[in-house]
Amino acid sequence: MRRPRTERQSVRASRSVQACPHAGSGTADMATRIIIVGGVAAGMSAATRLRRLDESAEIVVFERGRHVSFANCGLPYHVGGVIEERSSLLLQTPQSLRSRFALDVRTEQDVTAIDREARTVTARDSRTGTTLTEAYDYLILAMGGTPLQTTPAAGDAPPVVTLRSIEDVDRVTDVLASLPAATAARAVVMGAGFIGLEATENLVRRGLAVTLVQRGAHPLSPLDPEMASPVADELARHGVDLRTGTTVTGLTPTGVTLSDGADVTAQLVIDARGIGPAAHLATAAGLRLGPSGGIAVDGHHRTDDPRVFAVGDAAEKTDAVSSEPTLVTMAGLANRHGRAAADVIGWETGHLDAPPAAASPALGTAIVGLFDLTIALVGWSEQRLTAAGRAHRVIHTHPTDHAGYYPGAERMAMKVMVDPDTGLILGAQIVGGRGVDKRIDVIATAMHARLPAAELAQLELAYAPQYASAKDPLNMVGYIADNLASGVTDTLQWHELPAAMAAGATLIDVRSPQEYEGGAIPGSVNIPLDTLRDGVDALPGGDLIVHCQVGQRGHTAARILAQCGRRVRNLDGGYLTWQAGTHATERVGEMASA
Amino acid sequence: MRRPRTERQSVRASRSVQACPHAGSGTADMATRIIIVGGVAAGMSAATRLRRLDESAEIVVFERGRHVSFANCGLPYHVGGVIEERSSLLLQTPQSLRSRFALDVRTEQDVTAIDREARTVTARDSRTGTTLTEAYDYLILAMGGTPLQTTPAAGDAPPVVTLRSIEDVDRVTDVLASLPAATAARAVVMGAGFIGLEATENLVRRGLAVTLVQRGAHPLSPLDPEMASPVADELARHGVDLRTGTTVTGLTPTGVTLSDGADVTAQLVIDARGIGPAAHLATAAGLRLGPSGGIAVDGHHRTDDPRVFAVGDAAEKTDAVSSEPTLVTMAGLANRHGRAAADVIGWETGHLDAPPAAASPALGTAIVGLFDLTIALVGWSEQRLTAAGRAHRVIHTHPTDHAGYYPGAERMAMKVMVDPDTGLILGAQIVGGRGVDKRIDVIATAMHARLPAAELAQLELAYAPQYASAKDPLNMVGYIADNLASGVTDTLQWHELPAAMAAGATLIDVRSPQEYEGGAIPGSVNIPLDTLRDGVDALPGGDLIVHCQVGQRGHTAARILAQCGRRVRNLDGGYLTWQAGTHATERVGEMASA
Repeated sequence: MRRPRTERQSVRASRSVQACPHAGSGTADMATRIIIVGGVAAGMSAATRLRRLDESAEIVVFERGRHVSFANCGLPYHVGGVIEERSSLLLQTPQSLRSRFALDVRTEQDVTAIDREARTVTARDSRTGTTLTEAYDYLILAMGGTPLQTTPAAGDAPPVVTLRSIEDVDRVTDVLASLPAATAARAVVMGAGFIGLEATENLVRRGLAVTLVQRGAHPLSPLDPEMASPVADELARHGVDLRTGTTVTGLTPTGVTLSDGADVTAQLVIDARGIGPAAHLATAAGLRLGPSGGIAVDGHHRTDDPRVFAVGDAAEKTDAVSSEPTLVTMAGLANRHGRAAADVIGWETGHLDAPPAAASPALGTAIVGLFDLTIALVGWSEQRLTAAGRAHRVIHTHPTDHAGYYPGAERMAMKVMVDPDTGLILGAQIVGGRGVDKRIDVIATAMHARLPAAELAQLELAYAPQYASAKDPLNMVGYIADNLASGVTDTLQWHELPAAMAAGATLIDVRSPQEYEGGAIPGSVNIPLDTLRDGVDALPGGDLIVHCQVGQRGHTAARILAQCGRRVRNLDGGYLTWQAGTHATERVGEMASA
Repeated sequence: MRRPRTERQSVRASRSVQACPHAGSGTADMATRIIIVGGVAAGMSAATRLRRLDESAEIVVFERGRHVSFANCGLPYHVGGVIEERSSLLLQTPQSLRSRFALDVRTEQDVTAIDREARTVTARDSRTGTTLTEAYDYLILAMGGTPLQTTPAAGDAPPVVTLRSIEDVDRVTDVLASLPAATAARAVVMGAGFIGLEATENLVRRGLAVTLVQRGAHPLSPLDPEMASPVADELARHGVDLRTGTTVTGLTPTGVTLSDGADVTAQLVIDARGIGPAAHLATAAGLRLGPSGGIAVDGHHRTDDPRVFAVGDAAEKTDAVSSEPTLVTMAGLANRHGRAAADVIGWETGHLDAPPAAASPALGTAIVGLFDLTIALVGWSEQRLTAAGRAHRVIHTHPTDHAGYYPGAERMAMKVMVDPDTGLILGAQIVGGRGVDKRIDVIATAMHARLPAAELAQLELAYAPQYASAKDPLNMVGYIADNLASGVTDTLQWHELPAAMAAGATLIDVRSPQEYEGGAIPGSVNIPLDTLRDGVDALPGGDLIVHCQVGQRGHTAARILAQCGRRVRNLDGGYLTWQAGTHATERVGEMASA
């Protein structure tokens, strides 16, 4: 929503652009007064940008907690001792923000009400209990997220802590310090999302035995099962007791009880379950919420009240894949949207010559480290696309991060979803080591720019053998997308294989005999690629499926057979993807029967 | 150039798509016959793609050298022992290519002539001296590059070797083995380009003392001087004797003589000077060359003869910045264009349903490792833009690869050139450690997609503290580009500072007193940012220039002063860029006076 131009102009006319005020003094009647609720990522980005645009503005930040502008994404790593100094997490203080940006930052202030008619907010000082009402010209809501479920608590039970504030981390530190070192300490982590995995890794790093409890069928629900399979492997490799398909239903004096009836011993419980928008203040003020439960905003982060903006985890975003309202709780978006809201206000008050561009739709790019693994994703998963009934092609590859002939190359698993009608990239998932972050960023950039997947083949990415391959993994994805679109190749997904074989298709493993002997798909016959041309005439009739280790030799095999007039499909991602998917399916079966 | 449709259709009609021939046998009158000259990157990409498209085609590859499809970008690393096994460099052999792709690969065949009328090539076997003439339906020229200058040689002088083939590496290995270990061995490397730097690093790794001789004023000529400054530092840190502004003019019994008169001792000389297109065969055949001296081709890699394609380092590309013909000698482009030429032939012969898209203009993305440094670039430099009289804005930043609060963050120097009219990115240079390759790839993707520089701010790049920052370095570049475009900020380049100060501008260093004492720009006054608001009234009149360490505090300072009505510019890239540029200038002065 855009304010009527006349009103905007009247605001512009009410103040001098050339004024040189010293913040907090003088000409108060001329200064724009902005109140920001929430002083971490989105709120503080808005505040500092506002100051750089408008030296005369009065900018008040109310923060509920004791700290502002702290490194919330670093909290788990302070628990693990990776970030040694607690002070490293405190990027700014109210005093430093006053000195540098002339901000009026007030911590431990719980904003309890907004009077949109009077343009005031009321805040309660949580130390003294006193309340205060402050007027605004503009209000920016940046309250962030709040746990969707109540954290369980019982008097005679282990402490249950979220990992969302400096105070949370202090509490975990105290609990860990209080544990008798002689006893092997145990922890339960509720939720195997991003924070849950980071908490798990860092508790293991501190020497605790960790049980990780996940409601879904696999860790990191946004991943598809075969892509989550190496995540489960990595957890197992580090001794983590992963319990999927279950939840914590209660606390006991010695730990927790799970929904499957199991009791798990724990001296500490981390609640890392889902977060929703902290929108209650907006609701109480009669501001419109969107279908996702977040505060509804237009492309310029404005709520249905032209004087009120909402940014960060409390506000809705527009999903890049569906164009529908959605929630994406990422620090990058929070910072970006906070700054963008400041630009809108800066424009309306005459401090920018042009209005800022509307927000780009949200891709949901995310990354997490887990021991030696890096897991990154963007856009939608195959599961989500299937559930939404949205047509898609799937590409699995297993490239190395750099040229195989240069030492130290690490293999990653890569999956890309493509819209068969437009050719656009709908989502991607990458799991591996080095080079995963680079590839997800390039894909996110390609999605932002709406490059078709096949266009990835044309990207001129930097190549030297220690950094990449002459045909980068993303170039290869582009070639595969092109081959699928042009009909040069036809593929089959790992989960489609059983039905195809049941229908009579012959599965040909074109790897070497050594590879075949080291592990093969049941029912496959081994005809190495280099001998395939000689064996074509001896093949049984009917549909053929070929596969190799990762998909590349399979592609060549499929081309040979297709040109001999055979109906043939290449098993996408080869043996490695099939193996990961099959393991994932087996794990679900084991959990269900346990 | 596109062949007339009637002719294309007649080729399509002349063969059966459904044939299932075994390569090299039968139906020769129906098979398309393709000859490829050159069997490394471009040629072999064309050959293998052709086979996947057309099982019946006869595909003959003539390679001048003894090896095909070898890892030419790995050659320096085998010299240094990083790639231990020589066999790792040999990715394919004629035999393996016959088995897998039914290719007829002939090594040590020097193609001496093309008869375009008769559609034949004549090749001379360099072992036997016999010549052979072969007919083609299509000819793909992929001869690669050739040294621009003759490698010096003298009987009683150290061996001079290029690093372009397996044979070259074998020769270097032999020389190194022959050197008496007791004596400190010395080498001269001619040319401080990509290969020259890689050769230098690897000879140092082998224990040699290296003198690196560079005609230009600094190593890596495509870099601007202040960006090359850390490269010179890194060479010095590893004991390399860098001689700029000079060339090797002759060999002596004990080493080389330089154009500045100096004699340098060496038992081995590596010639890593410039490479040009190996176009003599095309010239002799009357094919058109372009203004760059490369074989002229259209967007589909076709020469002015519709039956002849040219790809790789021998062929011209279209420059993405100027849209003019250019030479870009990168393995990625060679591979891509080889495959694309195969697609054009595949389409014309009925094996693809749609014609391939025209080639994307070349960006010239490149990367090189040098000891602990990674240097990457794309597009044009500031120097090149200035020389071409092309308007541009410049942005320097010094971000860390990941969040500063997470251990191990490494600082990089980043420079981006922007078209002030279109806002498009014209070029970028990045020098640092971890994370350099990621950022150049994202910029290359943004350039490919023609995203304006300011749009980098909107990229949703993956953030967790060990991988990036919530505001990624590229987001920050986007914000700076936006601030420059909108007039929110005005900057000054390091090389513009002396003139501005001579004209009476006051230079204010807004860093802390500790930073100022640790090294400051002569003539600057220190007013720390956090006290600037109180000191505005005491500032002298006239133009102001502010600076900090990297540019960020300077931006805030400039905003404060601008809103007080002062004419103020922020020194782009801060003290670090000024220091790098000044060092580069001093080095040139020292070399000139030496």
